[in-house]
Amino acid sequence: MWFSEYQTKDLKISVKVKDVLFTGRSKYQEIQILDTVTFGRALVLDNTFQTTEKDEFIYHELITHPAMFTHPDPKKILVIGGGDGGTIREVLKHDTVERVDFVELDEMVVEVCKKYLPTLSCQIDNEKVTTIFTDGIEYVAQCKEKYDVIIVDCPDPVGPAKGLFEKDFYKNVYKCLEEDGVMVQQTESPIFNRDLILNIKRYLEDAGFNIVKLMVYAIPTYPSGFWSFTLASKKYDPLEVSPEKIRERLKNIETKYYDEDVHRGVFLAVPKFLKENIPVF
Amino acid sequence: MWFSEYQTKDLKISVKVKDVLFTGRSKYQEIQILDTVTFGRALVLDNTFQTTEKDEFIYHELITHPAMFTHPDPKKILVIGGGDGGTIREVLKHDTVERVDFVELDEMVVEVCKKYLPTLSCQIDNEKVTTIFTDGIEYVAQCKEKYDVIIVDCPDPVGPAKGLFEKDFYKNVYKCLEEDGVMVQQTESPIFNRDLILNIKRYLEDAGFNIVKLMVYAIPTYPSGFWSFTLASKKYDPLEVSPEKIRERLKNIETKYYDEDVHRGVFLAVPKFLKENIPVF
Repeated sequence: MWFSEYQTKDLKISVKVKDVLFTGRSKYQEIQILDTVTFGRALVLDNTFQTTEKDEFIYHELITHPAMFTHPDPKKILVIGGGDGGTIREVLKHDTVERVDFVELDEMVVEVCKKYLPTLSCQIDNEKVTTIFTDGIEYVAQCKEKYDVIIVDCPDPVGPAKGLFEKDFYKNVYKCLEEDGVMVQQTESPIFNRDLILNIKRYLEDAGFNIVKLMVYAIPTYPSGFWSFTLASKKYDPLEVSPEKIRERLKNIETKYYDEDVHRGVFLAVPKFLKENIPVF
Repeated sequence: MWFSEYQTKDLKISVKVKDVLFTGRSKYQEIQILDTVTFGRALVLDNTFQTTEKDEFIYHELITHPAMFTHPDPKKILVIGGGDGGTIREVLKHDTVERVDFVELDEMVVEVCKKYLPTLSCQIDNEKVTTIFTDGIEYVAQCKEKYDVIIVDCPDPVGPAKGLFEKDFYKNVYKCLEEDGVMVQQTESPIFNRDLILNIKRYLEDAGFNIVKLMVYAIPTYPSGFWSFTLASKKYDPLEVSPEKIRERLKNIETKYYDEDVHRGVFLAVPKFLKENIPVF
């Protein structure tokens, strides 16, 4: 049995599936858990791969650690989206963290991931975590809290997630960060979504962030395999954090992908066509 | 009409095809030129994507420039494989280059690419290029020349290309390099071919290279999207070339992907699981 995702209308990825472990529809989307041969269990929302047991460590380590290590002492963290729990798990590897507010729109995603993806969702019930089932866009608009780090672990900019890629959202994220706060967001494919990425960068700069930097890396199950995060910071430059400092803090943190070289590499490897807006696709 | 490649027996990529421009069989393989919606024209050998008009610049800039810029004055270059001509095109952007020996096994690939992929093959007939249709493994075994840079732009390690990933080949490449020579090779997916990559590194070190470093990046049409090159150098460390020096030499070279930051980034971004041999897939 095969599962196919149309990554665009002209490009399809197909994976062999051993079993369909769950299929259901929440208020917001169709939710599936597939047991695939190549990637282990996979969370699929509206026929789109979100994460898989095998490749999730790439995504979750890189959305979390470059931002967390850019901040010298991250205590209070907001995670928007990421209902599978992988980002929460990585955040809690930092023993500086005192509190994580976890804002997820779709309660059913969290319930399903708790049951079927325990290696990702294992820390959602940690006592430091407060889970709030609401719209992240609304949450930051209303929020009076100030965070050290905000991680926007969002799906593609369609449906309810669209507003997570718009101007007002970034202004509100800025407002919800301390004076030395850092934010990071999933920002799609450098090849297929170049314009979106360049817009996000401009919106973040307009919102007041002094430092806005893209990261690039590869995720096998995402369209084009080539993917990005964008980090925005009020004070600290991720490239000015010393490798020694990162190595020191990493002593208590187990990773499979991230280290002090990767920290610099994912920023430096950003292709020229993104920096100079050269059309390539 | 769709074309599908089984990237593994459990993973398939499918692209919409507007037209099949060429299909034929050489002594070595089945050759196709497809006109795809997403990637433009694609060279497909034995049902495996080799290169496409849209994404080829990523591959060809990164197999060429990090090695060429690691050497301070590359004059005499050997390119093994790469019948599409994309690597030759990038090599000839360096005005230090006096001579390129281009060793390709399959003459029909070159003829087909000259006709259907002119943006890649445009420099194959340059007067600095000597094309030799023979087996690259045999060529380096017999060769009495010494090169500044050797680029091994090889297909997957199956069939006649298998020997390009074996011990003796690397010893012969070492022998064919000047005392300060640099080599670089296409070395498959960090996820699906971790053991192969680690073997190649050991073989290159055993052959006598003082510096052996992996690069990582993404190519949409390759299995997992996540790909690697390995650079081996007798004297110069790619990470010790100054950004200023690269910027200076880049003034005369047009690129869409590579610059002095990317030069460092592709090496630094190598994931920890490859450096420490942590099993992930």
